[in-house]
Amino acid sequence: MPKQVDHRERRETIARALWRVVEQRGIAHASVREVAQEAGISHGAVQHYFATREEMLVFAMDFASEQTAGRVADSLRAFGDRPHPRDLLRVMLTEMLPLHPDARATSRMSAAYVLEALHDANIHTRARDGLTHGRELVEQIVRQAIADGRIGADRDPATETNLLLALTGLTPLIELGVIEPEAALTAVDQHLERLFSGEA
Amino acid sequence: MPKQVDHRERRETIARALWRVVEQRGIAHASVREVAQEAGISHGAVQHYFATREEMLVFAMDFASEQTAGRVADSLRAFGDRPHPRDLLRVMLTEMLPLHPDARATSRMSAAYVLEALHDANIHTRARDGLTHGRELVEQIVRQAIADGRIGADRDPATETNLLLALTGLTPLIELGVIEPEAALTAVDQHLERLFSGEA
Repeated sequence: MPKQVDHRERRETIARALWRVVEQRGIAHASVREVAQEAGISHGAVQHYFATREEMLVFAMDFASEQTAGRVADSLRAFGDRPHPRDLLRVMLTEMLPLHPDARATSRMSAAYVLEALHDANIHTRARDGLTHGRELVEQIVRQAIADGRIGADRDPATETNLLLALTGLTPLIELGVIEPEAALTAVDQHLERLFSGEA
Repeated sequence: MPKQVDHRERRETIARALWRVVEQRGIAHASVREVAQEAGISHGAVQHYFATREEMLVFAMDFASEQTAGRVADSLRAFGDRPHPRDLLRVMLTEMLPLHPDARATSRMSAAYVLEALHDANIHTRARDGLTHGRELVEQIVRQAIADGRIGADRDPATETNLLLALTGLTPLIELGVIEPEAALTAVDQHLERLFSGEA
């Protein structure tokens, strides 16, 4: 196996171990020592791939975002070459909610990362840039859907984008078992149905 | 001062110190030792008021919820004896978002508490019960507003309640500076305006 690929694979293995630590024990336990133990490799080996805990966290979060994007792309194949923006948004939103094990792992990583960002300037910049980028993708979909007459022209694209992203606020209700996953999906669908209700 | 009152006051002082630790350094630092230091009292004094870190966390969260409820009640005075449910919901939602220092402290405490609940069975039960109770209060307001003809009779109260609570999902966008507080308020108002659009 080429060295470059092996390097990337080892970093991903460590990132997945970090996700499991975050998911099962919380980010307070995501030290190089505990992650190495979870990955079944030596402390020194982790340090070979990541100079600092912060570098490891940043990579693990970027990898979580990539994996989420990959799941979205996989789900969208069923909708053909040009998915309806409602289907696109539904897949994006549901993959951001902790509705199945992979999504739960990345969702918990993401929630912990936001809190970590509040006390670490570098992570703050990375987290803000990542969220800004994701927000822009959603706003682009909303703007195109308005231009295509699928969302009413009276809707403000920035506000609709913020309301769509706010749906991730269902996460604590799902995680703590206050509502069933089915109820969360009903809420997402209800919101999308109204957003696209003016479709020509 | 009666002993009972003094006891309560000391616990609140410790709880506020814990909030500051959580807000400024993260819940990983919310140990009895660091909280005692932040409160400017001895480790032993904290242990006199709280037998365990968990007991201290649970009290600090309950106190945060009470303080949020108090801020809501204060804001509602301006709306007279029978506030319009739209105003009631707006005040509840905006006090749950990190839009001013007090609300930010309780919002960060709450976010950290949810993550802590995922790895602590006792905190999980407490957090779930607290969120279930808050959700029921909102659903009661929605049901009454439907009964009073202020929200359309075609709206499902459970789904509308979940969509209202989902608006707390604006929190990471505000905390990371991805959107301005003003944009969050616009999104909340837009959602409320549509919810009450069928008002008779």
